[in-house]
Amino acid sequence: MWRELKPIGRHPDSGGYRRFAWSEADIECRAWFRAQAEGRGLAYEVDRNGNQWAWLGDPEAGDAVVTGSHLDSVPDGGAFDGPLGVVSSFAALDELRGRGVEFGKPLAIVNFGDEEGARFGLACVGSRLSAGQLGIEQARRLTDADGISLPQAMERAGYDPTAIGPDPERLARIGAFVELHVEQGRALDLSGDQVGIASAIWPHGRWRFDFRGEANHAGTTRLVDRRDPMLSYAETVLAARREARLAGAVATFGKISVEPNGVNAIPSLVRGWLDSRAADQATLDTVVTGIEKAAREYADAHGVELDIVRESFTPVVEFEHALRDEIARILEGASDCLKVPVLGTGAGHDAGILSGSVPTAMLFVRNPTGVSHSPAEYAAEDDCVAGVIALADVLEGLTRR
Amino acid sequence: MWRELKPIGRHPDSGGYRRFAWSEADIECRAWFRAQAEGRGLAYEVDRNGNQWAWLGDPEAGDAVVTGSHLDSVPDGGAFDGPLGVVSSFAALDELRGRGVEFGKPLAIVNFGDEEGARFGLACVGSRLSAGQLGIEQARRLTDADGISLPQAMERAGYDPTAIGPDPERLARIGAFVELHVEQGRALDLSGDQVGIASAIWPHGRWRFDFRGEANHAGTTRLVDRRDPMLSYAETVLAARREARLAGAVATFGKISVEPNGVNAIPSLVRGWLDSRAADQATLDTVVTGIEKAAREYADAHGVELDIVRESFTPVVEFEHALRDEIARILEGASDCLKVPVLGTGAGHDAGILSGSVPTAMLFVRNPTGVSHSPAEYAAEDDCVAGVIALADVLEGLTRR
Repeated sequence: MWRELKPIGRHPDSGGYRRFAWSEADIECRAWFRAQAEGRGLAYEVDRNGNQWAWLGDPEAGDAVVTGSHLDSVPDGGAFDGPLGVVSSFAALDELRGRGVEFGKPLAIVNFGDEEGARFGLACVGSRLSAGQLGIEQARRLTDADGISLPQAMERAGYDPTAIGPDPERLARIGAFVELHVEQGRALDLSGDQVGIASAIWPHGRWRFDFRGEANHAGTTRLVDRRDPMLSYAETVLAARREARLAGAVATFGKISVEPNGVNAIPSLVRGWLDSRAADQATLDTVVTGIEKAAREYADAHGVELDIVRESFTPVVEFEHALRDEIARILEGASDCLKVPVLGTGAGHDAGILSGSVPTAMLFVRNPTGVSHSPAEYAAEDDCVAGVIALADVLEGLTRR
Repeated sequence: MWRELKPIGRHPDSGGYRRFAWSEADIECRAWFRAQAEGRGLAYEVDRNGNQWAWLGDPEAGDAVVTGSHLDSVPDGGAFDGPLGVVSSFAALDELRGRGVEFGKPLAIVNFGDEEGARFGLACVGSRLSAGQLGIEQARRLTDADGISLPQAMERAGYDPTAIGPDPERLARIGAFVELHVEQGRALDLSGDQVGIASAIWPHGRWRFDFRGEANHAGTTRLVDRRDPMLSYAETVLAARREARLAGAVATFGKISVEPNGVNAIPSLVRGWLDSRAADQATLDTVVTGIEKAAREYADAHGVELDIVRESFTPVVEFEHALRDEIARILEGASDCLKVPVLGTGAGHDAGILSGSVPTAMLFVRNPTGVSHSPAEYAAEDDCVAGVIALADVLEGLTRR
């Protein structure tokens, strides 16, 4: 399966993947999914929001056990974030068929569309629409960097955009959703485990900091006459690291936009985006409040105006404890390991979106470097196999309960 | 004259000028120059490098007195940087004709092409080519952000690009070149003078700092596992300000490029450009060495690789002392002011390029805010008039010597 998927959307220079929603690469990935489904005799369908489903058993029967993930990527992303969950789902089904398991419930594999939000700027569009967490009008207004709207992009890819919207009937068929994902951190590597279970997704948000100073000549303007927003930005970047470290959270300035962005011009505007996440809401509030306060002091000191806009925010997502505990019992019963680690994560996932509508859980596979959203993202083959076996065990256990 | 020139290349949103070399706006500015020349009965010509000349008297006679500046702009530049010198040249000629001055030598007004380097990344392309300070092959390789080469851009604008190159015969006709320019600082404002004479152009250079870290997920990567180049960049921005302040120089990070530049991605690369200038070479060396040393320490501390490339460098330009003193005598004889201030500047100019080939001087007109390379750039009307009178006095004195 990996062999066919590997070259799709891979950029020859960076070695990273550029599988943006509804792009040529995404269409190829979707064709791959359909071929995998039909090759296994599964009933293939696409829902109103472009999410792909492959069914074993009657979809209408209800209480289905569903697994899957996504196939799209961030710019120059790695091979595992998303695809590992989809590939492992098909492999787990093969494993269960090999075991001769009889399924007492319908089973489905899903590929959620546009999880990364790399093209239209909003993550988990496919699952958000289905779960009613993204308004139809709002979705229609999403546009990419070239001004192409989400409906236009869907239409060009051969999908009907007029049907998008909440899909409660389809979600009501699901008894449990389990998403397997490569870990995006080193917790399993540090604990020495191959597979872990998610406890919660940290609350996280994005804030835009607009530092406005005065454009001027970099060669002739005395330092004391300057209102240079790059200085306040730089101080704020360092404050963010400091506040995050003190609180045991994370805070990152990874995106910047500068005007006029000329070598010999003091900038008029430095726009920086803060991404911050913490294990709980109170900690996150402390971190962001601290960064905002520091940024305002720095801006004042340089005669720079500062606007801070919260662009998005997702509260903490606690996965259902009953399902989590059941999965832990299944995995601990199936293997010799005494205890499957339960860990939080700072990353958002379709499972987090769905958790508001259906019982949801996540499995993580060890990532020895912790690197993610990069061509260097990696999981060892035996850890991937352990992930498939664990997923197969979980699916078998859940269809039997 | 200002009325016709004012709307050309002005961006409706920013109010700033975008008169990039060989663009539509530049072609309109060139048409304006030609109309001004021909309207005054001057002989109009374009040299092999696209610089425009307007001659009174026989160009071949030699020992000509030449004045002028440039009409192109930085992105969202002001109305005065460049055009003030060209407009004042025509106005000074009108003033001298009004005085009934008989010229003992040929007089010319020049518009040098592509002074700001906003399109092709290299400043003073027109004067550099003519003075033999830019190789023909190197000039042919210059390309803009859209991949259009300098020869292609010239050709599209209706100019013959095959002829570009050194033009010693034309420069040999010049006995003295005087460029009038709006001051790009507040020295005249602080001293209370309307007009000043340039002593020297500070040595200056551009350095590119490439901080290479490791792209990773901003939500899930522990702080201790990060190699975030944005942190080293931010520390270096602050170090540059500190070193410049200690040395009485200037240092600016005004341009940045980040990869992948995603809100939820720790950057793999932060590329920042340093512009630094000082009154003398030793001071500039001290500043830049200090910044480089600090940057390397910061990079090491974060596990970030750092490459520093000097992209351009211009040594100190001392304007010819004899011409400078002669101009001071002319101005001090013509008016009641006891002393015309002589000041250095951190900005490069065509006059600096030509100073290697012909006796060259510059006049500065007061800039009450010091703002430059910005729509807020400004000179008061009576200061502009004083500039025209001073330039007329200087041209009259030089044609009589």
